[in-house]
Amino acid sequence: MSPQLDRAALEELVLFACRLAELAGRAILPHFRNLESIDNKQPADFDPVTAADREAERVIRDEILRVYPRHGIVGEEFGSTRGSEPFTWMIDPIDGTRAFIAGLLHWGVLVALNDGARPIVGAMHQPYTRETFFGTRDGAQMRRESQSMPLQVRKIERIQDAILSATDPAMFANGPERDAFRSLAATVKMRRYGGDCYAYAMLAAGHIDLVVEASLNPYDIQALIPIIEGAGGIVTSWVGGDASHGGRVIAAGDERIHAAALEILKRAPLDS
Amino acid sequence: MSPQLDRAALEELVLFACRLAELAGRAILPHFRNLESIDNKQPADFDPVTAADREAERVIRDEILRVYPRHGIVGEEFGSTRGSEPFTWMIDPIDGTRAFIAGLLHWGVLVALNDGARPIVGAMHQPYTRETFFGTRDGAQMRRESQSMPLQVRKIERIQDAILSATDPAMFANGPERDAFRSLAATVKMRRYGGDCYAYAMLAAGHIDLVVEASLNPYDIQALIPIIEGAGGIVTSWVGGDASHGGRVIAAGDERIHAAALEILKRAPLDS
Repeated sequence: MSPQLDRAALEELVLFACRLAELAGRAILPHFRNLESIDNKQPADFDPVTAADREAERVIRDEILRVYPRHGIVGEEFGSTRGSEPFTWMIDPIDGTRAFIAGLLHWGVLVALNDGARPIVGAMHQPYTRETFFGTRDGAQMRRESQSMPLQVRKIERIQDAILSATDPAMFANGPERDAFRSLAATVKMRRYGGDCYAYAMLAAGHIDLVVEASLNPYDIQALIPIIEGAGGIVTSWVGGDASHGGRVIAAGDERIHAAALEILKRAPLDS
Repeated sequence: MSPQLDRAALEELVLFACRLAELAGRAILPHFRNLESIDNKQPADFDPVTAADREAERVIRDEILRVYPRHGIVGEEFGSTRGSEPFTWMIDPIDGTRAFIAGLLHWGVLVALNDGARPIVGAMHQPYTRETFFGTRDGAQMRRESQSMPLQVRKIERIQDAILSATDPAMFANGPERDAFRSLAATVKMRRYGGDCYAYAMLAAGHIDLVVEASLNPYDIQALIPIIEGAGGIVTSWVGGDASHGGRVIAAGDERIHAAALEILKRAPLDS
């Protein structure tokens, strides 16, 4: 069973998540568009990882150990640290490393807090644009410099009117998975690629109606779930289950759009 | 014959181009992520145009008429105004309207000055990130707030190491055009979609090696040509001709990458 937190406790944790993401952003920013720091962990499979990634995760880990030493930590770069409490921080220092390497803007620092059952706090920070998106069950907000505004998904009825985003049409495995995505892409009004975490933030902000992706890691999605849910949206797997394990994920602003999209996706004979 | 301008005259014109783009940016920014101002010119074919687009073009036109009343103007929204001199300003108030509508960041104001033969001055401005990229034959620069830096393409030798960008894999017509793009996409190291004008700016800045697109309008590309050329890159059609008419365009940082990409693209039996 997951522990019950009151509103004040949750507020404190989400502000801490923002702080972590912003501290990481400060470590990352000097490396953005700095061509010398690009590194490559797995040359064979091209999984680009930068010095920024590692520095940022270290900053976040140090700060968690200082403030919540009993919490667990799972990060993309340095693996898992078990805590003595059920709480675990899930970190993706740079979600969208490919965009980052290409000098583009749709990437961000992701920080989630999982209570042992599900992500209850999420923060996404883009240090170059100075934006932070964050949420809990009590709501979601965006702040930029001195400005702050509530995040609220868009409610629309017909999937034919939806704006759909996915990071790359090639992220779907050839065969039924790609066919399912293509059917959905052919149904909506507009498609945009190249979004990574930023597309989910824009879904929470009411500008995108659907994000449909595959092959996600848990740390790619956990921070985004409380932001989208806090903004009134819904995030599940392609068959309507828990999205926090990653894999095939669908996020929608309106539950009617979510239902219509699941209907289209389930026509493909996908194994779990 | 196109008129000869000295360095000082060109400098004055490129700073004016930046001013136009930044004035337009000020008109556009209040509409960004403002859900009420989205409009639709052609509901059947979904060509989204916003109030921002029109206001921005009007601001630019007024300023050109005030300072260079004898220059011509070609804009996406309000068509062409002939000038009594060979100079024509080419305006795309928001290049990347779909990204704009989706709340994403890869869009910008494009302003080019064509001397009757070719674009000699180009500026691209993203008002949300406060960046301006600009160039002439004498060089290219980027400025953001109080910072300024020269733009310089990346020189790499092998196309297998290149980062390729295109706005949407679906922008290529089914058949030989799409096949040609796919062959190229399969050859490079990494692909990123969803860039619009911003991808060309990142090519000029040395983070992307190739941008390959189709179905461009002249005002989509003219501003970007002097920026890329000023940064040491090359922009042509898919058969190596003049890119300033739009259509199928290829931009590369290194001429060896450009040549290798043309070689792959020309295997497809494309008409003109």
